[in-house]
Amino acid sequence: MRTSIATVSLSGSLTEKLTAASLAGFDGVEIFENDLLASPLTPEEVRARCADLGLTIDLYQPMRDVEALPEEEFARALRRARHKFELMRRLGADTVLVCSSVSPHAVDDDALAAEQLSRLADLAEDHGVRVAYEALAWGRHISTYDHAWHVVESAGHPALGTCLDSFHILSRGSDPKGIEVIPGEKIFFLQLADAPLLAMDVLQWSRHYRCFPGQGGFDVAGLLRHVLRAGYDGPLSLEVFNDVFRQSEAGPTAVDAQRSLLTLQETAGLAAPPAPAPPTGVAFAELVTPDAAPVTAVLGALGFARTARHRGKPVDLWQRGDARVLVNTGPAERRDGTRLAAVGLESPDPAGAAGRAEALLAPVLPRRRAPGDAPLEAVAAPDGTELFFCATERPGLPDWRADFEDTGAPAEAGAAWRVDHLSLTQPWHQFDEAVLFHRGVLGLRPQESVDVADPYGLLRSRAVTTDDGGVRIVLTVGAAPTDDTAHAQHIALATDDVVAAARRFRAAGGPLLPIPGNYHDDLAARFEFADGELETYRELGILYDRDAHGTFRHCYTHTVGRIFFELVQRDGGYRGYGAANAPVRLAAQHAVRGFTGG
Amino acid sequence: MRTSIATVSLSGSLTEKLTAASLAGFDGVEIFENDLLASPLTPEEVRARCADLGLTIDLYQPMRDVEALPEEEFARALRRARHKFELMRRLGADTVLVCSSVSPHAVDDDALAAEQLSRLADLAEDHGVRVAYEALAWGRHISTYDHAWHVVESAGHPALGTCLDSFHILSRGSDPKGIEVIPGEKIFFLQLADAPLLAMDVLQWSRHYRCFPGQGGFDVAGLLRHVLRAGYDGPLSLEVFNDVFRQSEAGPTAVDAQRSLLTLQETAGLAAPPAPAPPTGVAFAELVTPDAAPVTAVLGALGFARTARHRGKPVDLWQRGDARVLVNTGPAERRDGTRLAAVGLESPDPAGAAGRAEALLAPVLPRRRAPGDAPLEAVAAPDGTELFFCATERPGLPDWRADFEDTGAPAEAGAAWRVDHLSLTQPWHQFDEAVLFHRGVLGLRPQESVDVADPYGLLRSRAVTTDDGGVRIVLTVGAAPTDDTAHAQHIALATDDVVAAARRFRAAGGPLLPIPGNYHDDLAARFEFADGELETYRELGILYDRDAHGTFRHCYTHTVGRIFFELVQRDGGYRGYGAANAPVRLAAQHAVRGFTGG
Repeated sequence: MRTSIATVSLSGSLTEKLTAASLAGFDGVEIFENDLLASPLTPEEVRARCADLGLTIDLYQPMRDVEALPEEEFARALRRARHKFELMRRLGADTVLVCSSVSPHAVDDDALAAEQLSRLADLAEDHGVRVAYEALAWGRHISTYDHAWHVVESAGHPALGTCLDSFHILSRGSDPKGIEVIPGEKIFFLQLADAPLLAMDVLQWSRHYRCFPGQGGFDVAGLLRHVLRAGYDGPLSLEVFNDVFRQSEAGPTAVDAQRSLLTLQETAGLAAPPAPAPPTGVAFAELVTPDAAPVTAVLGALGFARTARHRGKPVDLWQRGDARVLVNTGPAERRDGTRLAAVGLESPDPAGAAGRAEALLAPVLPRRRAPGDAPLEAVAAPDGTELFFCATERPGLPDWRADFEDTGAPAEAGAAWRVDHLSLTQPWHQFDEAVLFHRGVLGLRPQESVDVADPYGLLRSRAVTTDDGGVRIVLTVGAAPTDDTAHAQHIALATDDVVAAARRFRAAGGPLLPIPGNYHDDLAARFEFADGELETYRELGILYDRDAHGTFRHCYTHTVGRIFFELVQRDGGYRGYGAANAPVRLAAQHAVRGFTGG
Repeated sequence: MRTSIATVSLSGSLTEKLTAASLAGFDGVEIFENDLLASPLTPEEVRARCADLGLTIDLYQPMRDVEALPEEEFARALRRARHKFELMRRLGADTVLVCSSVSPHAVDDDALAAEQLSRLADLAEDHGVRVAYEALAWGRHISTYDHAWHVVESAGHPALGTCLDSFHILSRGSDPKGIEVIPGEKIFFLQLADAPLLAMDVLQWSRHYRCFPGQGGFDVAGLLRHVLRAGYDGPLSLEVFNDVFRQSEAGPTAVDAQRSLLTLQETAGLAAPPAPAPPTGVAFAELVTPDAAPVTAVLGALGFARTARHRGKPVDLWQRGDARVLVNTGPAERRDGTRLAAVGLESPDPAGAAGRAEALLAPVLPRRRAPGDAPLEAVAAPDGTELFFCATERPGLPDWRADFEDTGAPAEAGAAWRVDHLSLTQPWHQFDEAVLFHRGVLGLRPQESVDVADPYGLLRSRAVTTDDGGVRIVLTVGAAPTDDTAHAQHIALATDDVVAAARRFRAAGGPLLPIPGNYHDDLAARFEFADGELETYRELGILYDRDAHGTFRHCYTHTVGRIFFELVQRDGGYRGYGAANAPVRLAAQHAVRGFTGG
């Protein structure tokens, strides 16, 4: 189906918004009145610009406070409407959105509402315009879609139909099944928005917290199915008021929006991009660094061995068990200090995974990074992390290690060692986009969002995982762009004996993050431990958590550049990430800021 | 009365929080458990640090889910409590906060709650601790202060009292009058917080949006009066969970907090700082600039004349009617481009105004900025703007212009010319502090907060004014610290003929901000104008607004450094600032960014 986006969903000037919508592949736009008023382009110039960009103007919005008014006030509304219909002719827009009245003068009289809407539609018809009437969730007397449709139906005017908006319908908890009784040709327009499930005043919720379908808690796809069954064949149009998107660059937001509609159409059975091929594990994490020594010292102390070296590039493979870390000191990679730049995702179908990613607008990276490299399917995540779809010892698929030459150093035994999870800090205005990307493009499942108190502001954290926990990525965002803590990333390594792993690390000269004794005193108040157990945790700085399934023990190395490592031991099916301990860990990291070893 | 603050209200490590509280003049602190757990200091070290800083530890908080539990769970709670009471002995804290249960296992049985609280109080008494029991607004069975008091009263234990929290009481709309029936000695503690009046889930509201008394919408002073009538004589303690304060520097936040308590005590009749002496007008606005030519060209085109020059410093007085602008090119002022650095507030009692400001913790500036200067009373606002309390031709008071020498150039006639308002952009984390400062220190009245859509994010704007409009300051904050638009400041000049003023400015070569024709087309749809009126506005870029009282016409100069000027004409008692037009103005300023003159 055709896709459209309201200009209010994107930041910038009207021309910036139109350009971004076009580049992201939208077919049309809804022009929000204030965007036009603030534009130096005349309506004719806007029309021409849209035509150049391949965009239709699907809706002009909104008109407010038109129906169920005292006659004198309605006459003023008709006067305004005449101006707007003339403007729409100049713009080349043939549908206008009319929101249900919020005026204190509006009366609770459906017959009057229908009559006045009919007179408005007469005027619209004279100008070649159709009126799409929508119930605002906070409309004074008309606030549900079925009520609005009842008024439209009783008006019985060919130039009057209804506009459905998923936010207004789902925020009120209305059952969208009733949409199916509306004849499709009387649904003049469909606006789609999702929102997080918040218990707050619906007007504030609508104006500040809407998001793109798939980013919130509404069943937008379910609503869409009802609209399709009703016979609607107009555009799928996004109308999202969101404080963060208002501050973000229009280009990436428009791509995020289009990706949302693509996954929505897939869910609703309207489109079939290449099927998801979720990854089954983490093949490798790749660090780039201007100076390998500090980070390889940590890896060595953790028991990793340098088992292989890339044939053509300064990239070493460090390995322990199934945990693999690439250390890249290539000249192009030497900027920005030590950071996690790429993740190898173990994939049952690398080409299929890449095909899906491309269909869902993930930027595809060159398959060969250097002439001699084996081809590797890769895309960029919204935060710039490179994601490789690759196979390790998988029959019938090339092994990503083909470009590596063994050093002869044996990987240390330790079957339990693998990457438990990766924690990636997101640019603060791309958090919702990142969650949608990992869900839609990679087929991971988002878990609950968690707030964590850092000493200098709240952090928000959300894991995206496979159902079996083979891949776990924790997306984190700082409260403000100035929070430099928020830029830390970490690699959590699973072990079946965190105490032994921590002791070995310390014996090899690796400093563990010191955890305050007050924390362990509190553990003693909250839990009962075997003799000596708590003293061991205290000695090594091991943190402890428990959920309904099992226990979690974890500790941290010091930080090198933007990277630190976590050692974790999950027992009994513990599902979390020790979020309750995160404030203590963050405070400890602030306390040793600058402490990098030794 | 003694003042206290919960460590959770301030950012940073525990020692940073304690230092900030002490420097701001607090007598004590509530220690929030997580702050202690994350601190490398032992409880004994924290105790010693507090003693060194002159702080008592008034409360340890919180214990949760203690009462009305199945016996086995209550036994575990007692076990935890024993650990915490021992910890409190090490800390030297004698009162613990116990919040009403939110546990799904808690039962609705007041007798059981009273019995278990009594057993907890027995244990507490053994450790020299008192239990202050508080109803959380979202407590499972006990959620109102009178219910909590009923349980405490029926327990009848000397070591068990109640803790009152203004947020939990006022957020539920409870009538605080009932507090007066509680014997004062059974109110073990009083926590104070305000909050903006939001319609949202009370838990989220409490955890993210609390603010200091006087910054929100609750009648905290009214509640305090009831508590005092009950006979409470413990500390006034602030417990504020606020996402912005979490990210702000602890030092200024603690001063803001103490200022809030000082004004609260004044309102409640507990303290009498020097009475407010609200300013009656703007004596001058002072611009500092590395290069006077661009800004004086604007002033000249606006009809200002250079009427006087400072005797000892490179400061010129430019004047038209009663609008006065100082242009300072002194060497110390040459950094940061052209900006508004100081405001002269016409004061009926400069010494009294300065005394009040000092009593309310405003930083006092040196009375003489140079040896030859006449003394001037001045303080710094939270954003660093210098505020001078001064008199112009006021019998019995020295005139601030005594240091200036007339140039002989006559000020142009134009009795209506004066500063209508000043718009000052605030650091984004100091908005609430700035409002409280202008209200408490200067005696101005805050008006409604308004959201304005800039093309690159929402701005929040709030005017603080005298009742007669003699002084109007509009405080504005950007949505994010990276928004450079937010750094613009402006001086709005009142005239009785904005059309003539705009024409004169343009004829003198001053470029007016161009306003899109679409805006004026919309005006035609919304209002009826006399013949030719709208064409004049269109020609000059004049914007128009109307409220219940009158009309507002205004237009803008181009921007020099961070400063632009607005010409405004208020008729018929219009009270606003043209907020409805602000999105168009902001978009136009973005469109001409870099356009600095004609």
